[in-house]
Amino acid sequence: MKKFQSVKDIDNVHAWVDKALEIKRNPLLNNELGKNKTLGLLFYNPSLRTRLSSQKAAYNLGMNVIVMNLSQEAWQLELEDGTVMDLSTQEHIKEAAAVISQYCDIVGLRTFPSLTNKDDDYNDKVFQKFLDYLSVPLISLESAILHPLQSFADAITIKEQQKTAKPKVVLSWAPHPRALPQAVANSFSEWMLAAQYDLVITHPEGMDMNPKYTQGASIETNQKKAFEGADFVYAKNWSSYQDYGKVLHGHEDWMISPELLALTNQAKFMHCLPIRRNVVASDAVLDGPHSIVIEQANNRTYAMQTVLKEILL
Amino acid sequence: MKKFQSVKDIDNVHAWVDKALEIKRNPLLNNELGKNKTLGLLFYNPSLRTRLSSQKAAYNLGMNVIVMNLSQEAWQLELEDGTVMDLSTQEHIKEAAAVISQYCDIVGLRTFPSLTNKDDDYNDKVFQKFLDYLSVPLISLESAILHPLQSFADAITIKEQQKTAKPKVVLSWAPHPRALPQAVANSFSEWMLAAQYDLVITHPEGMDMNPKYTQGASIETNQKKAFEGADFVYAKNWSSYQDYGKVLHGHEDWMISPELLALTNQAKFMHCLPIRRNVVASDAVLDGPHSIVIEQANNRTYAMQTVLKEILL
Amino acid sequence: MKKFQSVKDIDNVHAWVDKALEIKRNPLLNNELGKNKTLGLLFYNPSLRTRLSSQKAAYNLGMNVIVMNLSQEAWQLELEDGTVMDLSTQEHIKEAAAVISQYCDIVGLRTFPSLTNKDDDYNDKVFQKFLDYLSVPLISLESAILHPLQSFADAITIKEQQKTAKPKVVLSWAPHPRALPQAVANSFSEWMLAAQYDLVITHPEGMDMNPKYTQGASIETNQKKAFEGADFVYAKNWSSYQDYGKVLHGHEDWMISPELLALTNQAKFMHCLPIRRNVVASDAVLDGPHSIVIEQANNRTYAMQTVLKEILL
Repeated sequence: MKKFQSVKDIDNVHAWVDKALEIKRNPLLNNELGKNKTLGLLFYNPSLRTRLSSQKAAYNLGMNVIVMNLSQEAWQLELEDGTVMDLSTQEHIKEAAAVISQYCDIVGLRTFPSLTNKDDDYNDKVFQKFLDYLSVPLISLESAILHPLQSFADAITIKEQQKTAKPKVVLSWAPHPRALPQAVANSFSEWMLAAQYDLVITHPEGMDMNPKYTQGASIETNQKKAFEGADFVYAKNWSSYQDYGKVLHGHEDWMISPELLALTNQAKFMHCLPIRRNVVASDAVLDGPHSIVIEQANNRTYAMQTVLKEILL
Repeated sequence: MKKFQSVKDIDNVHAWVDKALEIKRNPLLNNELGKNKTLGLLFYNPSLRTRLSSQKAAYNLGMNVIVMNLSQEAWQLELEDGTVMDLSTQEHIKEAAAVISQYCDIVGLRTFPSLTNKDDDYNDKVFQKFLDYLSVPLISLESAILHPLQSFADAITIKEQQKTAKPKVVLSWAPHPRALPQAVANSFSEWMLAAQYDLVITHPEGMDMNPKYTQGASIETNQKKAFEGADFVYAKNWSSYQDYGKVLHGHEDWMISPELLALTNQAKFMHCLPIRRNVVASDAVLDGPHSIVIEQANNRTYAMQTVLKEILL
Repeated sequence: MKKFQSVKDIDNVHAWVDKALEIKRNPLLNNELGKNKTLGLLFYNPSLRTRLSSQKAAYNLGMNVIVMNLSQEAWQLELEDGTVMDLSTQEHIKEAAAVISQYCDIVGLRTFPSLTNKDDDYNDKVFQKFLDYLSVPLISLESAILHPLQSFADAITIKEQQKTAKPKVVLSWAPHPRALPQAVANSFSEWMLAAQYDLVITHPEGMDMNPKYTQGASIETNQKKAFEGADFVYAKNWSSYQDYGKVLHGHEDWMISPELLALTNQAKFMHCLPIRRNVVASDAVLDGPHSIVIEQANNRTYAMQTVLKEILL
């Protein structure tokens, strides 16, 4: 496996979830598999869960880990070809990726979208440039458009919690004061559809996601109607895809509340975290018995460990 | 042991010092005890000794270590309950602590006081919030009001150097240009009193520490008188407790000098470091034969290793 | 070995290159040698190759590694003796180095020159201060005047690629928009001369390096003439040594191009990286068949591993 970026990089969601659950039952079973192998974790952006769970997963496999904050600790990278580099960029991605490949056996990269240049973002430009020039496998720790380790952890969590073979899963837009990436929503949709769950996406008029990731899902702009009979409600804000990167204000009533959840089939509440309390979802939801957000975070370790193991095997 | 924050979290100072000295004699004896366990070190503030000695101690026990600079590498945390999080904070301590507990077996946290909000500081608010929501043991790497690993290392150092069973230990305020926390002074006092040493605290008029931590010590505003017969002189600046966080200027003569030390019983000179030379103590003191500040720093490793070992056992 | 700063710290370049090549053939042979030993890597400045290759080398030897960004994570250090430290510096190098020596078995330090104070820079003041007060071995990860791990890796790479016993090696000044250190050039010259290669240094009039490092090399201000018959061309910008730290503008034609390389004996192209494309060398050179810059970076691991091994033995 040369990369882990999209659900398309794996053969079967359910088979991978089963692999992960086996690892979760015995996380130290392959404690020697990664011996003398080095995982390089490169961050352009903040990270709590990804940073910690990736290290934990690597340690469970006996790997060494090197963490680098690219913006602060290394040189400013040039991504364009043919540039006369006489301004602020100090090193070209060609060299940077090639030399990183000499020291690391597997690389993880976090890079957020600009939310201003839609084409660059949706070409996943930074991730793609690293991929082009690395000679070792590259794992997305969230890129401009997808967050596959999160979605994989979500799929594991749903499998653990589901009561029916084909649960109704609702992805609901929720309010947020700042412009957020679309990566988690795109990725979740992609994985749920690949898992052949009954996926309903609900959002205010005009907040449609990139259709590339939602084909096969039902779209419903009436949030209450969408929630009827739901087994899982996944809340997430995203900024506008149409009016690219714009924040939608004035929809505070889309915040997930116990009243909204009461419309569901006792749905479990999911979110990728970090979450703004009483903006995206109320305290009562997050502190209530149906929230499984901490378990989602826990499964991040086993998602990463599965990916690392498959690469190492 | 759920937390290591205060001397009250251990049963007996002398017994713990003995444990530490045994570890110091053979630091690698329990090299497998922490195998496959992860220590998470979370820093809100700069650190040299704590950062290095904590990692060294963990490695001596075979643990994995993950270091995170919370202010730069993760999300800005909300500590208040019930907040509508539509401003700068991005993640609530409830979620952050819960997810950290999934990835780490033991957590260490450094968090300095505001020196503006006395109540929050003396409730040790940030430390307490982490403690409330973590489900794994929490070790203070210096909090708003206490620095227990430093005091434990100080107690080890005194045990190694003492010539009498109940030495006279003098904690002396010293000058400093900036507002400093009161944590080291509070903590040192607490530990020395728990060890039942003869503790004298000397400071200029009006610079009284929080009496909660000094009950049982003699207070003496005449520094020279306090130094008479001292076996150990521990220098430390603290900002005002009464006029909270205010710097006391104009007491340069409180700097520890050979002349002042000449009044003692050949006292050993102690300081937690970092120390401003020729402000807190003169070069002649720090470079002289009575300074044991480097040995104090050395014992930080064994203090941490003892705490980690007791938690792991 | 107390320090690794200059070629003078080793006995014989060729013998050391042979040691490194043996390690390269079997990097994990001494995987237990560094067990329970800790390498502390201290950075004042950005680093990609050094940061990663040093960690990789240490892991290959079974060492623990602690990385610290001195400017951001610790206290601001005072280097002068006798200062009254009542301004911005918070800790004296004397204490800092002494305590670091308690926690680390070997220390690596990266510190760039000021390029404003020639005396301080050429006394290698910061490196020297650490050396004075550390009680454990110190490895330069590039200091104000030398970059020995780079030059050692360069020597390894030349040995692997050379076709004659005494190749002609040309060190060529190249354009750059900013003031750069002279360390790589000084160091490369020193190592090539110690290896008794035929070294030609070419630079525009007035850009002479410190003669201390170039004694024995031929100096040639006609770049084209210098390139004739070259087996290796090593490009590197340096700021002025005479007019200390000044950038030389207006010599864009000194950029290494295929046309210039055509004058050589099919010379291999070398650079320490990071390199500004189409400023220092053209894309055609870097992407062409004669570039060995990535292999140089690869050899950084074995250079560091050799130094660590020699210290540990």
